[in-house]
Amino acid sequence: MVKPAQVLVVAGTHGNERNAPWLLEHWRRQPEALQRHGLDVALVLGNPAAHKVNQRYVERDLNRCFAPELLADSSRNEADLQRARQLLACHGPDAEAPSLVVLDLHSTTSAMGNSLVLYGRRPADLALAAGLQGELGLPIYLHEADASQTGFLVERWPCGLVIEVGPVPQGVIQAQICRQSQLGVEAALAVLAAAQRGRLRLPAELVVHCHLGSLDLPRHPDGSPAACLHPELQHRDWRPLRSGDPVFIDPCGKEIGLALPPDLVGESVCPVFVNEAAYGEKGIALSLTRRECWPVGPDWLLALTDIASQLAQRGAPL
Amino acid sequence: MVKPAQVLVVAGTHGNERNAPWLLEHWRRQPEALQRHGLDVALVLGNPAAHKVNQRYVERDLNRCFAPELLADSSRNEADLQRARQLLACHGPDAEAPSLVVLDLHSTTSAMGNSLVLYGRRPADLALAAGLQGELGLPIYLHEADASQTGFLVERWPCGLVIEVGPVPQGVIQAQICRQSQLGVEAALAVLAAAQRGRLRLPAELVVHCHLGSLDLPRHPDGSPAACLHPELQHRDWRPLRSGDPVFIDPCGKEIGLALPPDLVGESVCPVFVNEAAYGEKGIALSLTRRECWPVGPDWLLALTDIASQLAQRGAPL
Repeated sequence: MVKPAQVLVVAGTHGNERNAPWLLEHWRRQPEALQRHGLDVALVLGNPAAHKVNQRYVERDLNRCFAPELLADSSRNEADLQRARQLLACHGPDAEAPSLVVLDLHSTTSAMGNSLVLYGRRPADLALAAGLQGELGLPIYLHEADASQTGFLVERWPCGLVIEVGPVPQGVIQAQICRQSQLGVEAALAVLAAAQRGRLRLPAELVVHCHLGSLDLPRHPDGSPAACLHPELQHRDWRPLRSGDPVFIDPCGKEIGLALPPDLVGESVCPVFVNEAAYGEKGIALSLTRRECWPVGPDWLLALTDIASQLAQRGAPL
Repeated sequence: MVKPAQVLVVAGTHGNERNAPWLLEHWRRQPEALQRHGLDVALVLGNPAAHKVNQRYVERDLNRCFAPELLADSSRNEADLQRARQLLACHGPDAEAPSLVVLDLHSTTSAMGNSLVLYGRRPADLALAAGLQGELGLPIYLHEADASQTGFLVERWPCGLVIEVGPVPQGVIQAQICRQSQLGVEAALAVLAAAQRGRLRLPAELVVHCHLGSLDLPRHPDGSPAACLHPELQHRDWRPLRSGDPVFIDPCGKEIGLALPPDLVGESVCPVFVNEAAYGEKGIALSLTRRECWPVGPDWLLALTDIASQLAQRGAPL
């Protein structure tokens, strides 16, 4: 017999994102806050060592540690990678107390609002995202086909997504950011509970922003930045850009326009993670996406319902 | 004969405040950008080791290292304290190439706008601040009589102040923040150059926000926060508060009002450094000030003119 599984909620995968860990403390003191949907929810602080020192990570970004080859490489033992293995051992789909769905709570210095990030096109993830978009209208960033950014936490669970809220500085707790994160988690649990009871209805379409690529700042030959983000682009995540629109500005005031590859000239693209503090070291000043409307696939709901049916029920829903 | 002195501009006293260091790079590549007032300006990166790792400090906040007893304590050798001694040895008022005025450039996650911070009531500082306020209308936070926060950099030079701009997350460069910092530096140099030529005219009054004290978050017995900043107070630096106005909110939504000591009940106070990321570890959720209008003292201009007359001239002003 299959073991009834939990829904895993991870807060503080990055140690300097403080809003979700603040909520986690609250949920631990008041467990009923997340119990109204009758699901068995496991709460975990993603990277306690990084959280303690208020830094994104200790040695390696925990949210880039979940690539199978990295997890399996016994010669690698960075603190964060060990934490990734530990999270899978305790809460992975094959753990003693398994989780089948993971909600990974993040915050960003970019003006993303309350948004969802998906990694790839797994039907169950798409169904969960469609349900959440139907409920709260959240925009969705689909990250895929980017060889330079891999090993995301949610990929190691059968179903999962990131709830990403901003703008908020690193190290700062803001009530509004917490509120939006909480709304996202509550809505996700409602969608999962509805799927479990066979009552989930998905919208006909999913609006999704598909990753096209990322732009780095223009740089001097020595690697130092030669320009910064154009002020007109600051806080303008999701707003369409066209080829030639100003994206950077140098210290003398010279504007640098968006250069799109030939197949995208004439199209509009939507920027995300604009000037995210943590991405400077990754060489990402912003990422570009294409807004698409997809019909919701008939297999999506089935995939999510299959997983949701394996989730434990914690008494009758209130 | 007295040696002609420089004006010292310090960027990146805190290693995760990136906007002023970005300007510094620009000024170094284009020195003429700061030369129009004919003053000899020394540019220095405050804490290179902290800047390199994008952290506020290495072992101890550099901007709390400048207390005379700490500088003189040969048993103390934290990296940041050693850097403080080095800055004084290279650029202090008694250095081989001395500076007599220091402009220390900071950024904050609080919505302070472009503002000035003074430490104590030195006449020359007040004159420089009055000149800047006359020029740009900047609000002034006068930090004084706070035994828990001491050892600020500018206190070790005969004249100096902090130019504090926000809101901007740690680790992020924003064109608008850089522009405001640059305006502040240019205006300060203009005031100093005018004082040097005996042509400085100060406004009749200085509007100053005098430090009253700081508030920490309400906390559980184990020290963890029991409430966060009230969303109505977020981004509301400088806006008057009265006794009883909501300042914190707990996770269940209970509001906690401002409790003022008896002598302040009935008055309005102005919050500053509201929810500054770096002050969590200092136990400061916000500081409270009293807005006062002071007549500009007759000794202020004399004190600043005396110092300005000792500044080197770099050829004729352009």
